[in-house]
Amino acid sequence: MGAKHTGIIRAVRRVDVRFPTSRELHGSDAMHRDPDYSAAYVVLGTDRGDGIEGHGLSFTIGRGTEIVLAAVAALEPLLVGQSITGFTENPGAFVRYLMGDTQLRWLGPEKGVIHLATSAIVNALWDLWAKLEGKPLWKLLAEMSPQEIVELVDWRYLTDALTPDEALRMLELLLPTRAAREAELRAGGYPAYTTSVGWLGYSNDQIRRLCREALDAGFSRFKIKVGLDQADDVRRAALVREVIGPSAALMVDANQRWDVGQAIEWMKALAPYRPLWIEEPTSPDDVLGHAAIARALEPLEIRVATGEHCPNRVMFKQMLQARALSFCQIDFCRLAGVNEVVAVLLLAARFGVPVCPHAGGVGLCEYVQHASIFDYIAVSGSLESRSIEFVDHLHEHFVDPCVVRGGCYLVPAAPGTSITMKASSIAAYTYPDGPVWKALK
Amino acid sequence: MGAKHTGIIRAVRRVDVRFPTSRELHGSDAMHRDPDYSAAYVVLGTDRGDGIEGHGLSFTIGRGTEIVLAAVAALEPLLVGQSITGFTENPGAFVRYLMGDTQLRWLGPEKGVIHLATSAIVNALWDLWAKLEGKPLWKLLAEMSPQEIVELVDWRYLTDALTPDEALRMLELLLPTRAAREAELRAGGYPAYTTSVGWLGYSNDQIRRLCREALDAGFSRFKIKVGLDQADDVRRAALVREVIGPSAALMVDANQRWDVGQAIEWMKALAPYRPLWIEEPTSPDDVLGHAAIARALEPLEIRVATGEHCPNRVMFKQMLQARALSFCQIDFCRLAGVNEVVAVLLLAARFGVPVCPHAGGVGLCEYVQHASIFDYIAVSGSLESRSIEFVDHLHEHFVDPCVVRGGCYLVPAAPGTSITMKASSIAAYTYPDGPVWKALK
Repeated sequence: MGAKHTGIIRAVRRVDVRFPTSRELHGSDAMHRDPDYSAAYVVLGTDRGDGIEGHGLSFTIGRGTEIVLAAVAALEPLLVGQSITGFTENPGAFVRYLMGDTQLRWLGPEKGVIHLATSAIVNALWDLWAKLEGKPLWKLLAEMSPQEIVELVDWRYLTDALTPDEALRMLELLLPTRAAREAELRAGGYPAYTTSVGWLGYSNDQIRRLCREALDAGFSRFKIKVGLDQADDVRRAALVREVIGPSAALMVDANQRWDVGQAIEWMKALAPYRPLWIEEPTSPDDVLGHAAIARALEPLEIRVATGEHCPNRVMFKQMLQARALSFCQIDFCRLAGVNEVVAVLLLAARFGVPVCPHAGGVGLCEYVQHASIFDYIAVSGSLESRSIEFVDHLHEHFVDPCVVRGGCYLVPAAPGTSITMKASSIAAYTYPDGPVWKALK
Repeated sequence: MGAKHTGIIRAVRRVDVRFPTSRELHGSDAMHRDPDYSAAYVVLGTDRGDGIEGHGLSFTIGRGTEIVLAAVAALEPLLVGQSITGFTENPGAFVRYLMGDTQLRWLGPEKGVIHLATSAIVNALWDLWAKLEGKPLWKLLAEMSPQEIVELVDWRYLTDALTPDEALRMLELLLPTRAAREAELRAGGYPAYTTSVGWLGYSNDQIRRLCREALDAGFSRFKIKVGLDQADDVRRAALVREVIGPSAALMVDANQRWDVGQAIEWMKALAPYRPLWIEEPTSPDDVLGHAAIARALEPLEIRVATGEHCPNRVMFKQMLQARALSFCQIDFCRLAGVNEVVAVLLLAARFGVPVCPHAGGVGLCEYVQHASIFDYIAVSGSLESRSIEFVDHLHEHFVDPCVVRGGCYLVPAAPGTSITMKASSIAAYTYPDGPVWKALK
């Protein structure tokens, strides 16, 4: 796969970057009232002397970012001194080595803080590699052979749902037509949906105005937050449905607010506004609960979506096996980076479930566009019922921000994973000593 | 409930305590080859002036203990300045407040490092309370009314399996007979099983000798590690069965080593030695996988046990709903402390599944004896198929270590949770600057 890149990973820089978003109401939901969108930010330096670095981040919402960085520090000895080819020649094995530390794995295993930290590192390695190849991440992935893609995945615990051989055959089937799908996306972009219209706390006028602006901008899929007050949810769902018209898609997101029975009852009241999906109706860990909700809501033609808090491929495997979700919302930081994302893309394709990544926050839109574009070109080969979340916040802090036009993500062209943050933004928003935070004290 | 205890929590002391157990082979299993049994150790100080402190620890296995302590530090502002009665008058609400921090919960939610840190704090609060009451933890719990016990639990996400009212009725049913069961345990102790005989790496002679010693000491239940080499597992299982005889119980523990299909095949080879359970056959997150293994092994009369890596009550709920386990192995640190342990005891009782806590490591035996004793007196009212893991390591570091005689845990009498470590041990084993670690460098 590509050229041999000489060099040794010499340094891991860790930065706690936080944006004081809780001062506005952007991002508030039924469980997270005051998020400060933040990043446990990681920069890998090498001894190559060409200044090319690998950037990665794990998205957090304020307090606790320092804990994720403490976990990055704990993983650092596994990384520093390793050759770049140690990763690029077998990324699957390298990630298993990172995740398999016999003492650190106790802290998960493969979930929570240690997994968030692993994702920042793994994605920084991919960023470094893609920059060295001079390609955007999606292109680096989409040029891999089926066998190379299969080898990215840690197959442990997956084989009762999908074997490496089955995955290989799926990928080989789509190989001859990859170029056509790539050309299609380059021409038209990848569909997006907007979450900007419906945060809790927005007024009627604000919602109406944001819906109209989004319609004018080309969006046809809209998501609102629900779960705090049923009457208010009905009012806002009715309002959005009225403004966007009968043919646009309306999705609702409860952010883990309900018990199983409560979710079913609550959604019956929202059914008249024909939501496409209810997202995170209950605990993100509750596979059987999601499955029960999905069965109960099927007659109302409301589907279940979940995944932004799904910690790993084993939980996604079960969500798919149990038919607990109809939309698979991978998170590029919650999963342990590119390799585990690829594992879930393969599982979702195996079960015929569309992947609609979780985005928003800071950097997630930049990241997940690569996953969805790669998914269409090489894994699922389908755009049906698929779209990427889009929230128009904080993109100005990135060197190569995602670009959404006419309700679609344009295919990114710059080398890397699109996640490199501007040095000026990092300096300004470093917590607690950056000037933005000092001024807020 | 009891007296009002004046005072304010003024300080949280955090200590990284590690024992260099990886220098021996104690504790090695198929996934954790070199554990240094460790504790993220927490001491709560108050302004009472009586010197009574709350001690708590979260068990870890070496590297990464500092990450758990970073999470304790992040939770500290929620704790310092709170009154003791703020906890004791409604422990359930206080724990929900600790777990509900709107920014920190993103790091789990309710799993991994942030949950391990929460458990250390919650259990330190219980230790403080029990010491102030002058009672061991089990006694403090066993004197609570059914209503008070129900209110300890965070019922969110549980009501599709068990409602507070159902739990109340279960507890009320056992209320009149609590005293008899308490007297029974005071007389005979609570059954234990031993894991000391079967770590990987032990020689035949060592295993034979340890089995005989354990038989002589009164044990009739024995667990060995499996999963690295099938032929070697067969040899060791046969050896243990031969020494312990046909009527003693043999359990095997794979520590997450297998995929679903592999677990089933591997266990068929061990069936002739009649293992009572296979523990952690696959990913601890795989509810459906455990259920599939349980169904496949039922004809062989081998049951499935799991729980030491089960992160929270929602995962245990599903394990029980799916009949994925026949033995529920709660962990006093992996769950968020006493309150969530009580939640799982209630769920297990509702499903008629015996609780056999995970212990060993450092401090877990001390902790879990309180859970099992309380379970028998007030929750399940049964000893059938129940026993507490026992490993005879590191107890000398505790002020009031657990005592096992004749294969049974004696009922602890000292006030608190039995987890207070000797000051000399803390000083000696503090990492990295304690004298033990300095000498090892």
